[in-house]
This record gives sequence, structure tokens and C-alpha cells, in this order.
Amino acid sequence: MDTENSVNHEPDMDGRDIENDQLMDCKETGTAESYTQPLLSKRVNTTSQIAIVGANVCPIESLDYEIVENELFKQDWRSRKKVQIFQYVILKWAFALCIGLFTGLVGIFNNIAVENISGFKLLVTTDLMTDKKYFKAFAVYAGCNVGLAAAAGALCAYIAPAAAGSGIPEVKAYLNGVDAYSILAPGTLFVKIFGSVLGVSAGFVVGKEGPMVHTGACIASLLGQGGSRKYHLTWRWLRYFKNDRDRRDLITCGAAAGVAAAFRAPVGGVLFALEEAASWWRSALLWRTFFTTAVVAIVLRAFMQLCSSGSCGLFGEGGLIMYDVSAATVTYSSSDILAVLLLGIIGGIFGSFYNYLVDKVLRVYSIINEYVFLFDHSYYIFTWRGAAFKILLVVTIALLTSCCSYGLPWFAQCIPCPADSSVSCPNTDVSGNYKSFQCPSGYYNDLASLFLNTNDDAIRNLMSTSTSKEFHISTLFIFFTAVFCLGIITYGIAIPSGLFIPVILAGAGYGRLVGRLFESISKLDTGLFALLGAASFLGGTMRMTVSLCVILLELTNDLLLLPLVMLVLLISKSVADNFNKGVYDQIMKLKGFPYMEAHAEPYMRQLVALDVVSGPLITFSGVEKVETILHALRTTGHNGFPVIDNPPFSDAPELCGVVLRSHLLVLLKGKFFSKDKILGGEEILQRFAAFDFAKAGSGKGIKVDDLDIEEEEMDLYIDLHPITNTSPYTVVETMSLAKAAILFRQLGLRHMCVVPKSQGRPPIVGILTRHDFMPEHVLGLYPHIKPHK
Amino acid sequence: MDTENSVNHEPDMDGRDIENDQLMDCKETGTAESYTQPLLSKRVNTTSQIAIVGANVCPIESLDYEIVENELFKQDWRSRKKVQIFQYVILKWAFALCIGLFTGLVGIFNNIAVENISGFKLLVTTDLMTDKKYFKAFAVYAGCNVGLAAAAGALCAYIAPAAAGSGIPEVKAYLNGVDAYSILAPGTLFVKIFGSVLGVSAGFVVGKEGPMVHTGACIASLLGQGGSRKYHLTWRWLRYFKNDRDRRDLITCGAAAGVAAAFRAPVGGVLFALEEAASWWRSALLWRTFFTTAVVAIVLRAFMQLCSSGSCGLFGEGGLIMYDVSAATVTYSSSDILAVLLLGIIGGIFGSFYNYLVDKVLRVYSIINEYVFLFDHSYYIFTWRGAAFKILLVVTIALLTSCCSYGLPWFAQCIPCPADSSVSCPNTDVSGNYKSFQCPSGYYNDLASLFLNTNDDAIRNLMSTSTSKEFHISTLFIFFTAVFCLGIITYGIAIPSGLFIPVILAGAGYGRLVGRLFESISKLDTGLFALLGAASFLGGTMRMTVSLCVILLELTNDLLLLPLVMLVLLISKSVADNFNKGVYDQIMKLKGFPYMEAHAEPYMRQLVALDVVSGPLITFSGVEKVETILHALRTTGHNGFPVIDNPPFSDAPELCGVVLRSHLLVLLKGKFFSKDKILGGEEILQRFAAFDFAKAGSGKGIKVDDLDIEEEEMDLYIDLHPITNTSPYTVVETMSLAKAAILFRQLGLRHMCVVPKSQGRPPIVGILTRHDFMPEHVLGLYPHIKPHK
Repeated sequence: MDTENSVNHEPDMDGRDIENDQLMDCKETGTAESYTQPLLSKRVNTTSQIAIVGANVCPIESLDYEIVENELFKQDWRSRKKVQIFQYVILKWAFALCIGLFTGLVGIFNNIAVENISGFKLLVTTDLMTDKKYFKAFAVYAGCNVGLAAAAGALCAYIAPAAAGSGIPEVKAYLNGVDAYSILAPGTLFVKIFGSVLGVSAGFVVGKEGPMVHTGACIASLLGQGGSRKYHLTWRWLRYFKNDRDRRDLITCGAAAGVAAAFRAPVGGVLFALEEAASWWRSALLWRTFFTTAVVAIVLRAFMQLCSSGSCGLFGEGGLIMYDVSAATVTYSSSDILAVLLLGIIGGIFGSFYNYLVDKVLRVYSIINEYVFLFDHSYYIFTWRGAAFKILLVVTIALLTSCCSYGLPWFAQCIPCPADSSVSCPNTDVSGNYKSFQCPSGYYNDLASLFLNTNDDAIRNLMSTSTSKEFHISTLFIFFTAVFCLGIITYGIAIPSGLFIPVILAGAGYGRLVGRLFESISKLDTGLFALLGAASFLGGTMRMTVSLCVILLELTNDLLLLPLVMLVLLISKSVADNFNKGVYDQIMKLKGFPYMEAHAEPYMRQLVALDVVSGPLITFSGVEKVETILHALRTTGHNGFPVIDNPPFSDAPELCGVVLRSHLLVLLKGKFFSKDKILGGEEILQRFAAFDFAKAGSGKGIKVDDLDIEEEEMDLYIDLHPITNTSPYTVVETMSLAKAAILFRQLGLRHMCVVPKSQGRPPIVGILTRHDFMPEHVLGLYPHIKPHK
Repeated sequence: MDTENSVNHEPDMDGRDIENDQLMDCKETGTAESYTQPLLSKRVNTTSQIAIVGANVCPIESLDYEIVENELFKQDWRSRKKVQIFQYVILKWAFALCIGLFTGLVGIFNNIAVENISGFKLLVTTDLMTDKKYFKAFAVYAGCNVGLAAAAGALCAYIAPAAAGSGIPEVKAYLNGVDAYSILAPGTLFVKIFGSVLGVSAGFVVGKEGPMVHTGACIASLLGQGGSRKYHLTWRWLRYFKNDRDRRDLITCGAAAGVAAAFRAPVGGVLFALEEAASWWRSALLWRTFFTTAVVAIVLRAFMQLCSSGSCGLFGEGGLIMYDVSAATVTYSSSDILAVLLLGIIGGIFGSFYNYLVDKVLRVYSIINEYVFLFDHSYYIFTWRGAAFKILLVVTIALLTSCCSYGLPWFAQCIPCPADSSVSCPNTDVSGNYKSFQCPSGYYNDLASLFLNTNDDAIRNLMSTSTSKEFHISTLFIFFTAVFCLGIITYGIAIPSGLFIPVILAGAGYGRLVGRLFESISKLDTGLFALLGAASFLGGTMRMTVSLCVILLELTNDLLLLPLVMLVLLISKSVADNFNKGVYDQIMKLKGFPYMEAHAEPYMRQLVALDVVSGPLITFSGVEKVETILHALRTTGHNGFPVIDNPPFSDAPELCGVVLRSHLLVLLKGKFFSKDKILGGEEILQRFAAFDFAKAGSGKGIKVDDLDIEEEEMDLYIDLHPITNTSPYTVVETMSLAKAAILFRQLGLRHMCVVPKSQGRPPIVGILTRHDFMPEHVLGLYPHIKPHK
């Protein structure tokens, strides 16, 4: 759903609530002689304050990475002893350990469950086929798939719609500073784990990688909640993590752990977090992330050793993907390089085409979501039907996938088994190459070896070396086409669905096809071509380079392939960048997340900060009437309010700082009111600790309706100085918008004060938030500016 | 030399020149009623403005990564067409290609030269020994070493003292924003290449890795000079790189290419640049760096294929280091893990002890440098003697190293060759295991196999697998002790000397020793122990994690070692961090580079921006008298001057922006003066292009003495508006110093304006530069603050 143009009726925590404009009293303080910008009081920000999380539309909120240096913070900081710093450091590492441990365990569970469920399904199907009961075999196969798919769809549709899809765009948006409650909620975690197992087992062309990243992030977020009063987990140490900065670090570790667990690629996981997921990075974080993924690697290794004795059911070596192309020779001539170049270019084009199609399909699917959204609050029946539609779509795709994977192999001819094969042929096992399917003894069905297998096994077969003649060209073409289309229509349905495996699968098929076609000009092994094809598709869709390269190397365990993989990735990314953006960026935009890019757009140099300030601005005095504060909190959704010191507290009106909504609510609840306009900071400092103002876990903060302020308290005053952040980042109104955007983004701000250049005016002219830098807002205000110069 | 306390007599480009305080006229503009800070006019910044580059003391200058958004820039930006953006992008990638190509070629040259020179040396020595001419052999061996060492020392001492040492601290400082002309000068590049070849060939316990990083950075810097008028290389396209931002990116690529070429580790190179070298990082840079190292990898690969036919003289497979421990089994029990943990802990302690000793030895050696420095300008004879002393030290260490490597093996017993050895034993080849030395046929000298070899070969022998009994425990102990001590005393002498190889060599010896000692409790191969020992030493000295891990994996080409290597690195780094800082940080501090950390120190929260402002502040009016500007330029070393608009150009004094010294010099040279105080911007905009003000290559900018302003022109006026950066980053004077430091560091600023909080005061109260955030300055002003809370 394209939310950019939708009108926002949701309460908004950060930007301007346009519904309440007329209710606001424009409380301007200070002298206002030179303060004559007619635009300012009328201009509002109409950018969307909602986004789609999974398949769920929900309000979004900005995260705040700025350290609120108010008096309470300073008092707390001064009183902090070495033991507390020690507690904090210990806990940080303990959390990193836990994230690695839990993510590793989830990865193991996921693998064992998928291998056993789909193994059992394939076993039954193969057995029935061996008995020539082909229709019964199809009924069982399709029945299993549809059942599993319906279960996954129901979990997603009824329990946590936010768990649908890859989850990487949501995690990426979160790490950029956009929060929505359901992104990392416990329900999302639950559905992500079980929905992913069911979805992958159902034979969909989906992967478990994206969901694993999301799972890792959810685990990290749960650990970083700072305990739970509901479950009596209120250990004092945990309070150190009640802020967005520390949670961001944890969730970055979680994302890295997810990739590490999915691919058994610890270094790749770190690089993925660095290159794709995280918006802010520090050297210290590199180290902690690395520790987390090392824990994951050790957990996985221990489990592999445990399972090697056969105690994990049908989980064989196929469980954790690891492709072996080491038998391929890696000396190459210039004609090989030429073939690889061509492979990269075409792969890049296909990759960007994949992105284009995914975008189109998602827009079609979102009609269903929109339907749910529009009627959600009005009629329960529509919600039910909306969810049912989602499940119906899931079941349809499952049926289609089953038909393809069971039906298409019938078109393939039976091929005589190679005489020199080291593996058994034909093969009636759960996994492996040379599937028998309907063929007589001594023959195998090459298309069934790809289709009637788990995705991991299909990739392994495609990348197998020294088997260049195993798959016919027509087989590879059919498989590539089918998987390419299935991958595109599967992403976006209401199940947790990763994008890595579909892209690798299609890419490997494409690569092997190219390898077969180029047999005359290139001596490279077709298995190696399959790997390079996968690399080219990944580069063309995801547009990562270093992390993909390392992940592929860790998957194949052969560093000698490095130059070729690098080359293919660079070419396909360069080619694809000419057409559209990376798939995650594209999905994030489609979902309506206000993502802040690291660089400023060129057109921003034509504007200054004041040009995008929207109003009205609501400010408080240093000592303010309770009624005024309450009114502002009730009638606006603003999250930060500038505090202005007026005489007698200062010689002239001057900007004291910024106070946050959440802090105001805590302060009001404490009821330290005074009759007169006097400073009462000392008492507040004594009665409150800094942690009383710490950011609560998701959805647990005080709401304005929780306050029970009596009528007679309305006329009292309250001193805001102790909770005012006296060091807000400010820009002068004539500061170039581009430079203001860089400042905002680099420092991870939520509010930026715009101060006047000339004297004799109010000390603040506006506050800029994330939404004020969004192209929709800026270009909406100045339609004559051409964004692409 | 500890330059922190030395008084600065050098002209200084950035901070405050304390010599000229009394000359400055404190030109304060605006109303100054409330402007009564007695401290401000007296407080000066006495932090050092010089640093040691290599073995050379020279003035340092800050780099400026801020985009100067003045009218000229905006005009230029508006006029820029698509073709110019295209030129810029093409050139960026072309430069990345060139950096990779040239660095790869230098890496090849270095390897071929070293292998041939030291191969020839060892060949002659071994031949003489076979003929039992032991004294003659020693004379030849030591003579070669001393001769090569003297040549390397002479190159360094006379041509480019800046090329001494590793170079990584200098590159790291440059990428943090500290420039000194000689860091990346062509002379430094020349000496770095040839000095490194000579030094490594001379048998010193030094590596070529640090010098390769420096070489890569120098190559990148040369390419980014923006052409040369002297050599008629003034292609128009090159001008796009005449700024610090683009040069920083190029040099980051260069540093990555250096590591990639030295270790044949392209991914490790990227990660090294990211983790250790660079202070600023962007996703786009990750991609470009990756491209550069891919080019290096391809160049090296092509050359290896070329040399495999034997056309590179004595360069065998030993040339590009690549250690093969793949024969080692990688299943391990808990007792193995225990042994590895212990190895990591002790390795971390040794690593930090290494850092401690290197620091002490460097301080001793710097006495010689100081001697040179103090008398440099006065008497030529002293310079000569200083350089001669340096060479003498080099020769002494060379002799000592020769004595060790030739003398110590005599203490080892001859060992009978193993019956099942697959390689020839005893070995009289240039490289390889089982050196014969003085032993009879059928016997080998294990200590000679380590000492009388190139460093690469010694490491390869230590890491060789399935040869657990090859080296005696006493042999390993002697070798470890000797190499540990030699490595420490060798770093700091006047030759290009990398730290990686000494640390790996000592670590591998230590690891193999531990492996032998733990034979009873651990079944791991001693070769694997050697690798893990090297990892523990690297972690303990360099304190990198991910990049070292990847470099080691790329060196050994076995990803299955990952969990163990990760574990060892994490442990040794954690242990060593309790004692001191990483070796490069330590050397950088010793050399006096004002490095800005990414985080603010805790004590900075107790101060506000105004607390560290030093004076006196020199400001210009928007239209200023030529004399005033000239006087300010001549009497101060300031690089940025605030411009204040006064009536009639504004209603009240207000901050217009900041103007840079280099821009002022160009403007003055243009002589667009006017008799009256009027705006003359239009004419300037027409006559100048933005590129006239672009940053010139090293040392080529206009000096204030180059101006020939006539006496009658002194009273004329000049309009500064067109070159004033009207969007300087500002902080309010009451902003917490910690937050100001974060802003300064994150955005890569050179000047930050401090503006008053209250009205009715001058519009700017000071400028903060890098030096104002240095602990020496801050803690010097407020000695009561305890830095380590």
C-alpha cells in the first residue's frame, strides 16, 4: 500500500498532528517584532506517520539516540561508581552472549524442524511413488504443503501480522531510528520462528534467512526491555538498557547473529549487519557483534557434532547449508573471464528485474492488506475476512508451488545414470541428487532432483561439481523460469519469507544454465557457474558486496574463489544500480518507513533549515503552569517541546533546552507543583532518580490519560528545569538544509532546534524532526525544485 | 620523543600561535556590555602543533571535511551538469582501479625483489656452509645483511625520514584528520618501497605489511593531488579531487589495497581499513574499497600464474605468504578448548607486554631523533651526525640480528631426519624446512630451519602440520625469546618496518611452544597451535578482531578454523585491553598526533563548550579592510576566521559565517578591492570559479608572503561574502563539551563556532578546533578534574 499520500488519522508521536491544528494555542513567547513569517504558522507536515510492518499497518515513532543531558542525568552520572560501570559492561557482554546463544538455538531448532518435517513429507511421497501410486503421492504431497502453509498463514494472519515477509526491511528501518511497537514484539518473535519453520517445510520458494535476522533482532529486543514488572523481572542491573542507544546496539548484534545462524557464516553476519542493516556503527560494536556471531558459530558447531551421531532424526548433513564446490578447478583463462563477465551483466539485469517484479506483486497483494486496514476498526467480520483472504492467498500459492514441483518433472525425460557416479543413482532418499521419480531403475529424473527436494538440497545439487552433464539445458531452463516466478509471487504473502534462498535458487539455476550454454567457450565447472550465477542474482537484488562475498565464501569454504565472486558481485551490482534500488530499500519505501539516508540529497542545498520548519511551535516556560502543559500534551502528538527561560529567570527570553513528552508525563505524575512561579528543582532532584525517566520497554510508558490531575492543581506551577535537556543540538535558521540533514542523521537525533540568526526575536523558531527531512515533505513545499538534478 | 610538553616554535596552521599573542590586535566587534569573561582573552591553547612522522618532526595541520557552502560553491554547484557528475564518478572508479593496480604491482615487485635478494644471500651462505667454510659464510651473511641494512637506513635518514617505521600510525592519523606534508609525499613513497625491500632482505625481524599500507596510501594520495602544474598534468577532470573529503576516500582505499597486497587478503584488507585505519566510513566507501582490493587480488593472481612457470628468479611459492594448516584436524574436545583458552590469555599478556616494551624502546630511540631535531637548523654537521647515528643504529641491529640468526643455531643439536618425511631432509635449498646447517647427512638443525630463512618461511615452518616433533622445546624457546626481543628493538630504527610479521613470528613460536608443552592434554596439531599463538599475539598487540580473523583465515585458506581463531582473538584482546592500548594507538600518541576518539571522554560532561574556548578571537567584517586581513594572516596562524555582518549590511551584528585562510589568500591575490565599504560580490563571482579556491595538492597553496599588496591598496576594502561559508556548524556556549566533541568528530569538522546563549552580545564567542578537545588542553585548564572516573 502506498501510504505516502494517505491521510493520517493515527495519533502521532513525533511529527505534527494535523487534525488538532485548530485546537492548539500558538504559545509564542518573547518579543516578536521581526517575527513575521506568515508561512510558518500555517505550514504543516503532512507526511505519513504510519507504516506497514509485516502485513500490519501501525503508527510509527522515532527513536532518540541523543543523550538527554539534564540535571537529573548529570546528578546520576556524578553519583555513578565504578561498580555500576562494571555492572553495565558485564551486562552488555552477557547480553551479547545470550543473543548469540538463543539465536543459535533457534537456528538449530529451525533446521532440525524443517529437515524433519519436509524430510518426512518427501519420504512418504517418494515411497508412494516407488509403489507407482502417483495420484495418492501428489495428494499427500500437496496436502502436506497446503496444511503446513495454512498453519503458517493462520499464525501470521491472526497472531502477528507483523511477522509476515522477510523482516529485514523492518529491522533496517528500526536501526535507522524508526520504531513501531509490533516490529520487535514477543508475538512477532513467536510467529517468526514457527511460521518460518512451517513455511519452509511447506515447500515454498522462501528462505529462513530474513526471518532469522528478524528473530535475532526480536531476541535482542526482548533482552533489552529492561526487565518486566508483569513477570517480576525487575533486576536493578537491567535498567541500564532502558534507552534507545543501548537497545540499538543489542539489535545490531541480533541481526548479525541471525545471519550467522542462518548461513553458519559468522564473519558474513558481522558484515551483513555493517553493510546492510545498521545505520550507525562504531568500532566497539564491531567487536561485540563479532563476539555474538562467534557464540552462534560455536553453538552450531556443537550441535552439528551432536547430530553427526544421527540423533537428530532426518536431519542429515543437508541441514545447515554448506555447498562444496572445492572440486572445481580455479585456474581460468581470458575466455572464462569473458563468460563470467557476461554472466554478471545478465545476472544484474535479471536481479533488478526481480526487484521490479517484487515491487509490482507487493502492490497487488497490498490491496488485500488495505481492505483489512480500511474496515478493521468498524466491523469484526471484515477483519476475519481480511485474514481469511490472506490465508486463502497463502493456500493458493502453496497449491501452485506443489503443482509446479510435482507436475513439471513429468515433462522431463528419464536420463540414464552416469556410470562413474560416486553417489547412488537413482536415489530414493530424502535428499540428494539423481532422484528416481517416475523413472525405471538405472534412470533418473533431473528436474525432480531439483524440484522434489528442499531448497537447500536443490541449491546443493545445482552447485555440485564434476556433474556437468547431470542436468539438461531444457531442465535448467524450466527450473529457472519456474523458481524465478514462484519466488516473486511468494514474497509478500502472509508467511515469514526470506529472500535469500529464492534469489540463490534462481541464480544458481541461471548460472548452471549459462554454464551449459557456454560449455564451448569456458572450461569452468558448471557447479562453479551455478555459484557465480547465485552471486550475480544476489548482487543484482540485494546490492551488497562485501557481506555477500564473505557469506558465499563461508558457504562454500573455498577462498580461492574470491576474485571471481568479487568480480561477479561488483558487475551485477553496478549494472542493477542503473535500474532501481536494492530490494530491501525498495520494500522499505513501499512500506512507508521514513528512512534517513546517510547523505543529503542535492536539492537540499537550495534550501535552508527554516524553509522546512512546520508549525505551530509549542514552547514552555522554564516554570510552567500545569494546565498549559497538560493541554499541550493532550492536543498535540509532539514529543519534544522547547523550554524558554523568561525573566525573572533570565535577563531576556533565552532557549533553556528541550523537554521530552515522556519525561513531562513522569514529572506530572509525581505532582511536585508549587503555587508560585518559583524554581523547585532541588526537591525534584531529591525525589526522582534518573532511571525514573528512562525509556520504558515497548508500550509500557505512561500515557497522558493515566494522569489524574485535579481541577485545582491546574493553576499550579511546575519547574521544568531538572528535566530539560540543556544541550540540545541547534542549527541557525539560515543553515543549509543539506548540512542540517547531515547533522541530524550523523548524530541520530530526534529533535533539532532551529534558532534565529538575528537578535531581538524569540530564541527558537522551530523544531525539525525526521519527517521534516523527508522528500515528500520538502518537495511538497517546494514543488518547483527538481529532485534529480 | 614526548612532544606534548615541548614548546611550539613552528608556524601553526590551525591552533593558536602562542609566540604571536602580543602582536594580535584583539578585534572584537559588536556590543560588548555583557561580554566580560576575563579568562577568554588570556587563555591560550598550548597543545603541541608538531608531531613525529616516521623519524621526522614536522608541523601538523588539520584536514577539513566540511563542505564550504559559500556563494561560489553554490554557483558552481548549480552550474554543474550531468556530464560533470559523470566525469567525477568515472574518475573515482578509475582512481580506485589505479590504486589497486599500482599497489598490486608494488606488492609483486616487493615480493620478487625480497625473495631474490634474500634468496641469493641464503644460497651463497648455504653453499659456503656445505663446503664447511663457516667463518666465510658468516662474513658473507652478515656482510650482506649489514650492507642492505645500511642502504635502507641511508635511504631513510637522508631522503625521507618520514618513511621510517610502520606507517600505519601516520595513515591512521591522516584518516582521522591530521595532516603533515611528509606523511604521503612522493619521497616517502619512494623510500617506503625500496627501503622496505632492503630492510626485509637484510634479515631484520620486520614485515612488509605496515610499509605496504603506507605505500598504498601514498599512491592514493599522489593520484588525488589533482594533477601537477610542474609536470604539466593539469587535466580538468582531476580538479574534482582537490578537497580533503575525496582524498580521504582515496587514501582509505589505498590503505585497504596495501593490506590486500601484503597478505593476499582482499576481504581482510577492506576490514582492516574499516576497523583500524579509517575514522569515517560510509557504505559507498565499503564498495569502492572492495573493488580496489579485488583489483589487487586479480593482479597478484595473474602474477602468481606468470611466476609459476619459474620466470621470476628465486621467487618460488614462498613469495606471497600463504600458510597451509588445512591438514590439521579441526575437531576438538573440551581439554583442547581449555588449552586454547590458556594460550589466548597468556598470548594477550605477552601482546600487551610487547606494546609496553615497544613504547619504552621507542622513547629511548627518540633521543637520537631529538638530537637531530634540536640542532637541525643550526649546524649542518649535526644533521649529518644525526643521520649517521641513525644509520649506525640500523647497522648495529643488523649485526646483532645476523649474529643471532647465524650464531644461535650452533647451540641446537642435530636431529635425525624423520623417516616418513615427504620433503627432502636435510634441505640445502633457499627456503623450506629441515635445514642442514652444520649437521651431517641425514640430520637437520631445527633452529636453523627457523633462523636461517626468510621470515615468511620461518612462519610457514612453524605452522606446518603433521610435523609435531620437528622442533625441540628448547629450540622453540630460544627462537621465541630471540625473535620477541629482536622484534622490539628493531621497530623504531630508521627503516620501513612493519609490525605484523614480528608479532606473527613471535606468536607462532610461542604457540608451537605451548603446543609442545600441552601435548599431553591437547590433541590439536602443533601447527594449528602455532597459528593460534600468532592470533593471540596479534590480538594482544593490535587489538583488532574481525579484520585479523579474516586476514588469518585468508592466509590459511581454511574457514573451519574460524571458531578457534575468533575465540583466541577475543580472549587475547580482552586480556590485553586491561593493561594498555593497541600498539598503533600507543605509537600515535607517542608521536604526538592529536587523534580525535569517536566517543567523548566522561570528564567532558562536566564542562561546557565555552570552558575550553581559547583566544584571542579574530573576526572580520563582511566587507573588510585589506590591511586588517593581511595583518591577521601575517600575525596569526589561524586557518578559519569568523565573518560578522555589521550595519549597514544587517540590522545588528550577526554571524555571517566562516572564511578560510586559503580562500582569503586566493581572493587577495585576485585584488578585487574597492574604495568604499560596498558589496562587490557579483564581480568576484564572475571572475572566480569555485575551483580556484579548491584545496591545492600538498605544499602547493599560496603563502601569505606570495602576495604583493601595494601600500596604497592597504586602505581599500574587499567583500568577503562570496567566499564565506554561510552554513558553519555552531554550538551554543552552554552546550556540554562532550556533545560538542561528538558533533565535531562525527561531522569531521576543522572549525566549530561557539555562539552566545543570551542576546545583546557579540554574535560569536569563539572557535573550537581539534586541539581544543585534546585532553592535554582541557585537563591543563581544569587540573582538578580527574580524567579517569
